[in-house]
Amino acid sequence: MTVRLDLSYDGTDFHGFARQKDVSTVQGALEAALATVLGPIETVVAGRTDAGVHARHQVVSFEAPEVDLARLQASLNRMLPASIAVHRVDRERDGFSARFDANRRTYRYFIDAARVPSPFSARYSWHTGHDLDVERMDESAAHLVGAHDFASFCRRAEGRSTEREVLAAGFSSDGNRLVFEVAGTAFCHQQIRSFVALLVEVGRGRRDPEATAEALAARDRAAAAGAAPPHGLFLWEIAYPAGLAEPPDLP
Amino acid sequence: MTVRLDLSYDGTDFHGFARQKDVSTVQGALEAALATVLGPIETVVAGRTDAGVHARHQVVSFEAPEVDLARLQASLNRMLPASIAVHRVDRERDGFSARFDANRRTYRYFIDAARVPSPFSARYSWHTGHDLDVERMDESAAHLVGAHDFASFCRRAEGRSTEREVLAAGFSSDGNRLVFEVAGTAFCHQQIRSFVALLVEVGRGRRDPEATAEALAARDRAAAAGAAPPHGLFLWEIAYPAGLAEPPDLP
Repeated sequence: MTVRLDLSYDGTDFHGFARQKDVSTVQGALEAALATVLGPIETVVAGRTDAGVHARHQVVSFEAPEVDLARLQASLNRMLPASIAVHRVDRERDGFSARFDANRRTYRYFIDAARVPSPFSARYSWHTGHDLDVERMDESAAHLVGAHDFASFCRRAEGRSTEREVLAAGFSSDGNRLVFEVAGTAFCHQQIRSFVALLVEVGRGRRDPEATAEALAARDRAAAAGAAPPHGLFLWEIAYPAGLAEPPDLP
Repeated sequence: MTVRLDLSYDGTDFHGFARQKDVSTVQGALEAALATVLGPIETVVAGRTDAGVHARHQVVSFEAPEVDLARLQASLNRMLPASIAVHRVDRERDGFSARFDANRRTYRYFIDAARVPSPFSARYSWHTGHDLDVERMDESAAHLVGAHDFASFCRRAEGRSTEREVLAAGFSSDGNRLVFEVAGTAFCHQQIRSFVALLVEVGRGRRDPEATAEALAARDRAAAAGAAPPHGLFLWEIAYPAGLAEPPDLP
């Protein structure tokens, strides 16, 4: 049967999602727990996340022998560390892929704009230490929407296309917290953290709001401004076409 | 001069507020940082917190040589770990005591009521794993308000009175999070965590809402239900009589 897991995790103590030898990863922890219940399992993930990046909503799929889904969920949550939570376990149609069927990925990046950073959001937001103009950042973010070649914002991967479609991008503020929300069909490696790094330069007044459009046109990594730190970034929500399961109640 | 610090801290990695030999405490970290700027300093605190308990708002006072307050704040925040934030440094009138002048202490205790606990609130809330009836807990909490002998809810301290005045106590829900807020002029050791432990028994339906009133009347530690874990508890706000500084912008 084809199984789908909807989960969230605190990425602080993981070397990213993807399985690696000798270091702790989310996929490694998940597959180790699955193995004790089901035997060896290879999981497919909707959105790989880098070291330190969090997921409020992540989706994983795999092929498995027939199993009681409620019991599988209880076993996984008992075995996994408190930093990983499995919110739901569903059976999907044969051939479902958490990665290839996903049609919209939403991320949020949080910035702590308080003068003195909060000890309670230190794990989950970036304290830039600068005054930021959120309207200016929002105006600049709008240039990123659409189908473009995002070469300036992608970590180079030989032979891979850097064309993507961004469906929505905007900055808002929520008290002392600034929130960048961006949605797309898919993203390349470091794309969102590269967006944030340049938008912070715009928010500080060191670049014009048109800097995002100029960087897009340049198709050159050097035209951007590096990458913002990983701990402010959350994979926020994965969406699938109608007919597949809706996301569960999430934190 | 008499100096007042308004601070917050994540208590996860501290053995409580109060200075102790050979273990990491908030007071120990703070006095070590103060010592490098001002020489040896003895601080007085508004509300001592136990190991693992957090403070959104804590106040500390001390006598010090004349010093530039803005610079002192910047130095402290540079030296202290990210888990402690100094939000403001003020000069108070001679003789001001963060402890003896405080006239209202407010605490909040957070319970994660989601079926599967959130990885993002694991440090800051108690996941009891039981369905809780918040209206029943709120009804039961009301019995705690007033001037009483709280012996049933206080960790015993030979020769010390256990009479206190609770000014307000109530449970509310905020999505999947239940919040117990309690205010008083002062509290004895473990009083709030003991309230919460009994109220959770009430919320689970194992005790009647009158259990709080009965426990009060018994004046016996065995009439309560132990203490809830520390990591759900926040010292939320310390208030002083009019004329003293208002609390700063807090997380």
